[in-house]
Amino acid sequence: MSKKNQFISMKQVSVKDSFFSPIQKTVVDVMIPYQEKALHDEIPGVRKSHVIENMKIAAGESEGEYYGRIFQDSDLAKWIEAVAYSLILKPDPELESRTDEIIDLIGRAQRPDGYLNSYFIAAAPERRWQNLSDCHELYCAGHMTEAAVAYYEATGKDTFLKICCRLCDHIDNRFGPGKITGIPGHEEIELALMRLYRVTGEERYLKLASYFVDERGKDPDFFLKEEENRGWSRTNYVSKLSPAYMQNHKPLREQDKVEGHAVRCMYLLTAAADLAAETDDEILLAACRRLWDNMVEKRMYITAGIGSTARGEAFTEDYDLPNDTAYAETCAAVGVCFFARQMLEAEPCSRYADVMERALYNGTISGMQLDGTKFFYINQLEANPEMSAEVYGDEEYTPERIGWYDCACCPPNLARLMTSLGTYVWSSGEDTIYSHLFIGGEVFFDMGGGVRILLESRYPWEGGAVYTVDPDAPGAEFTLAVRYPGWCSGMKVSVNGEEVPDSALGKDGYWKISRCWESGDQVACHMDMPVRRVYANPLVRADAGCVAFMRGPVVYAFEGIDNGEALQTFRIPREGEAQILPYDPELLGGIVALKIPALQKEIPESLYLGQPCPEKPVTLTAIPYYAWSNRGLTHMRVWMEEA
Amino acid sequence: MSKKNQFISMKQVSVKDSFFSPIQKTVVDVMIPYQEKALHDEIPGVRKSHVIENMKIAAGESEGEYYGRIFQDSDLAKWIEAVAYSLILKPDPELESRTDEIIDLIGRAQRPDGYLNSYFIAAAPERRWQNLSDCHELYCAGHMTEAAVAYYEATGKDTFLKICCRLCDHIDNRFGPGKITGIPGHEEIELALMRLYRVTGEERYLKLASYFVDERGKDPDFFLKEEENRGWSRTNYVSKLSPAYMQNHKPLREQDKVEGHAVRCMYLLTAAADLAAETDDEILLAACRRLWDNMVEKRMYITAGIGSTARGEAFTEDYDLPNDTAYAETCAAVGVCFFARQMLEAEPCSRYADVMERALYNGTISGMQLDGTKFFYINQLEANPEMSAEVYGDEEYTPERIGWYDCACCPPNLARLMTSLGTYVWSSGEDTIYSHLFIGGEVFFDMGGGVRILLESRYPWEGGAVYTVDPDAPGAEFTLAVRYPGWCSGMKVSVNGEEVPDSALGKDGYWKISRCWESGDQVACHMDMPVRRVYANPLVRADAGCVAFMRGPVVYAFEGIDNGEALQTFRIPREGEAQILPYDPELLGGIVALKIPALQKEIPESLYLGQPCPEKPVTLTAIPYYAWSNRGLTHMRVWMEEA
Repeated sequence: MSKKNQFISMKQVSVKDSFFSPIQKTVVDVMIPYQEKALHDEIPGVRKSHVIENMKIAAGESEGEYYGRIFQDSDLAKWIEAVAYSLILKPDPELESRTDEIIDLIGRAQRPDGYLNSYFIAAAPERRWQNLSDCHELYCAGHMTEAAVAYYEATGKDTFLKICCRLCDHIDNRFGPGKITGIPGHEEIELALMRLYRVTGEERYLKLASYFVDERGKDPDFFLKEEENRGWSRTNYVSKLSPAYMQNHKPLREQDKVEGHAVRCMYLLTAAADLAAETDDEILLAACRRLWDNMVEKRMYITAGIGSTARGEAFTEDYDLPNDTAYAETCAAVGVCFFARQMLEAEPCSRYADVMERALYNGTISGMQLDGTKFFYINQLEANPEMSAEVYGDEEYTPERIGWYDCACCPPNLARLMTSLGTYVWSSGEDTIYSHLFIGGEVFFDMGGGVRILLESRYPWEGGAVYTVDPDAPGAEFTLAVRYPGWCSGMKVSVNGEEVPDSALGKDGYWKISRCWESGDQVACHMDMPVRRVYANPLVRADAGCVAFMRGPVVYAFEGIDNGEALQTFRIPREGEAQILPYDPELLGGIVALKIPALQKEIPESLYLGQPCPEKPVTLTAIPYYAWSNRGLTHMRVWMEEA
Repeated sequence: MSKKNQFISMKQVSVKDSFFSPIQKTVVDVMIPYQEKALHDEIPGVRKSHVIENMKIAAGESEGEYYGRIFQDSDLAKWIEAVAYSLILKPDPELESRTDEIIDLIGRAQRPDGYLNSYFIAAAPERRWQNLSDCHELYCAGHMTEAAVAYYEATGKDTFLKICCRLCDHIDNRFGPGKITGIPGHEEIELALMRLYRVTGEERYLKLASYFVDERGKDPDFFLKEEENRGWSRTNYVSKLSPAYMQNHKPLREQDKVEGHAVRCMYLLTAAADLAAETDDEILLAACRRLWDNMVEKRMYITAGIGSTARGEAFTEDYDLPNDTAYAETCAAVGVCFFARQMLEAEPCSRYADVMERALYNGTISGMQLDGTKFFYINQLEANPEMSAEVYGDEEYTPERIGWYDCACCPPNLARLMTSLGTYVWSSGEDTIYSHLFIGGEVFFDMGGGVRILLESRYPWEGGAVYTVDPDAPGAEFTLAVRYPGWCSGMKVSVNGEEVPDSALGKDGYWKISRCWESGDQVACHMDMPVRRVYANPLVRADAGCVAFMRGPVVYAFEGIDNGEALQTFRIPREGEAQILPYDPELLGGIVALKIPALQKEIPESLYLGQPCPEKPVTLTAIPYYAWSNRGLTHMRVWMEEA
């Protein structure tokens, strides 16, 4: 382990959080079993997955034909990864045994040379490795490898890990310096190889990850040439897309804007930041930092959603953040968390954690229905149900979550994020324990001697948190670094009742509490948590004249079901005081709602008028954004006109 | 002639207008010759038309293959129609002789049975009349017929008229009660048959027009069944589109919203309003009125553009009027003028003329470059050049006019509208002469005896107009009805210096000046013409918090080239006074520009902020909307945020 600071592993932490524990429970008890059934095509009325069946066909154990997207192995892999984490959260021998069977099936599908991809094995064995741009073999291999690492770490069983080592060895034998030149059309293998490197200690996986990261962008026409050379096309996708769509327009080290397909970009940057920290590569880290800044300060929704457009699920231009046509794919927000976590390992700095937190409380979990059985792929910030087909060019689209997708990448991505949530909360360096998020739970560190910390909070509904430290040996010396959240303008920290001076707040945005810790030492934080008005940079056309509301890390939304469907007819006076309602455990799984004074315009007959319409005072209700669309089809807005 | 009120013919009027005469001159001297060259594929660097060549192929006089859209005969027809009008404006024996040759060519291409369509004759003779939904045979026949009527009226030559009588007889022999059931996918034949009926006096053309109007909507699945029956598809267009796209979802008499493809809808309603007035059909007229109201009060841009979306060039939902993705096809605004003119014949009422005027000074002529050689198909109300490919899903699209289109319907449509403009200005009933527009010129009426009227104005830059009446015999008795424009809040009218009392203003919005007219009698109008702030109905999401500026009928726009490209960073204080600049003959072909005090927001580093950004006072320049994009690629907005 050459990194100076690393996030904790699953087994070091247990999440006991009033906000996230119920979500984790839903994921473990409902979502993972639901997705298992979906992968087996056992949910009536929900579109077919065929994923398990595809693997059986690849293993020669079923006669059917491959069905579905070419990259569906990744759905299965992400689900297995989520299962691995869930087995730590809640052991389930039956689930584990069924998963072992699936892993065995995967093993039987694998070719003797290590190759593994159900589509090509089942449907086009002669076309292996010819279409890296859009056939996603390396992408699927990456997800398989991530799952294998997680399953090994959770269960100690190495069957899957060995499968994926053979697979990655196969890849390593094929691609790299002095071998065949190749990069994936959809990044993912890079970050997976980093994980495989850590669990196996095999340097060749690190080198291969590094090769894939650095080879990218050397030849912007790589995918075009690949297409010309092979003489067949699965889709006419590539030739239409610019190299930037796959982050291949120039070497990553020279890039200064996040471009193209947002998920691809996040997976690449996750691997790059990991590599940079692992190898002390300052130039690569500087590129990651530059791209982070561009993403966060020019191309990110207030919900931490990224990728403004459905066309290519991609970034567009700086400050182009339309609300009704927002794409903000769930997977992309999940990717933001991955990237943020790697940046935090590379250089602990609260601005990374701020964004990760914003993603976790908003743009990721908006992707799941509260009951865990339906999912958003797209996370709009303004919904006008009657216009959805129009704005997305898809007659099928309505702003209601659905049970499965033809391209079902998001649901299992959310499952693995939520089950592994504990590993995003804490990291530790040589002598510092970083508390990045106020997610309650118990954590264990080895700081020379063992240290346990209990974090209790009612976050995000209340702005307090209490850390109780329990070292194995009294007088353990280390620094506890507690984040000062960017959203907060008044935070106090005390140790055993004694206020920590402002001088303890580092430039990195963390309170540094260094002492010899005794059992029972308590660090208490108080964060002022008023309702905040947020304004977008004036260059954001879509939000001109508008205001959004946040409280703590939570972005609020206005739904038609609470306020009447014509949300565009309201204006919120600048001086109006928002009322914070008491926590309501019965509403939307338990939320704090807001009441906000507003003006509603009268609706005249005419389309165009010589003066603004008269207004009457009303009171609006706002609910947390993530919880919207859980009460039927309705209009929704995050940004409201301000008076 | 059974209509009580009818617009004048081309030969009764000459336009001598400080605003439109230069445009007419550009159309006659530049645009029509330019389009002739385009139709002959003689303009280097401009995309191929192949229209004349297609007709030669159909006539067996060329060996090539049909090229281009299936409905390109209509481009040629609209151009011939424009030529016809231009020959009245400015005789040109050489142009007339070349046009005669083209007409002879069309005659040689026509089949012995009267059938005429270059695509099917040249490329698919066995497929005639099998695909009414999207093969546009009836649409092309309609345009040919309109052109033939116009050419006959202009030149007295009946070759083309006879061709089109044979064509329409062929159609009449095929379709109708007791014959084959059929309706056009794209309306146009209906209104053309009405014109043919008037010029020939043949009732069967009226009946056939009536059949096509009334048959539509009887079977919403007509086009789907047609597709199933024929067993071939030119495109997979129809089955994807709802019947409403072709106004076939229910009978027109039962429709209450303008739906579907906007141009189709306008052409249908033009014919329907004509029929309703011709046959005193109150139910049909009521439907036209209802659909007019829905269009004008729920689905029309301030520029009189219609059809909000590029998807199907169509209407969407009430109050859905996005500015950056506005489609507002030039042809659709032209169609608004057609429809308005028919409504004015059916029931003279200033609200129809108000909209026609708004279209003529804004959403139609915005379709042409000031020099007459480039054209807009789409008329956005907000242009962000860097985003155009994104919002239209078309990499080729930029907000600059281009020289020709693959689908080149708009350029010749503008040409025929502008050359026939005089016929939109005046109408007459039994004893009333209506002055609908303040477009200067001379007009002749037969009101028992001959009456000449000279209208002089500096409209739209000045709010005055003077009518000088000159009857052949002194003491001619009739009413001169002068429109009180809807945009005006202070209009005075005098006759020979004596003010006309308010009681002379009818509920229809026209001043009725009834007297025995002597030669030299003068009616002078004064209209207050301040800069007006216009607000959209609060249900229009895209314009919330925004204001637009008009003066007289002219809509103003803000261009980046005058104001800096970040137009979203400005707010215009409600109480600011706009300054009207003197008419500048050198600027954009001669315009009155505005100076408007505004505030500009400072641009911070951050994407999201805790308070609105500071603002500094600035002065913005606004130019007439129609003249935008004549000084290079730039940003543009009509609707600006109001402070």
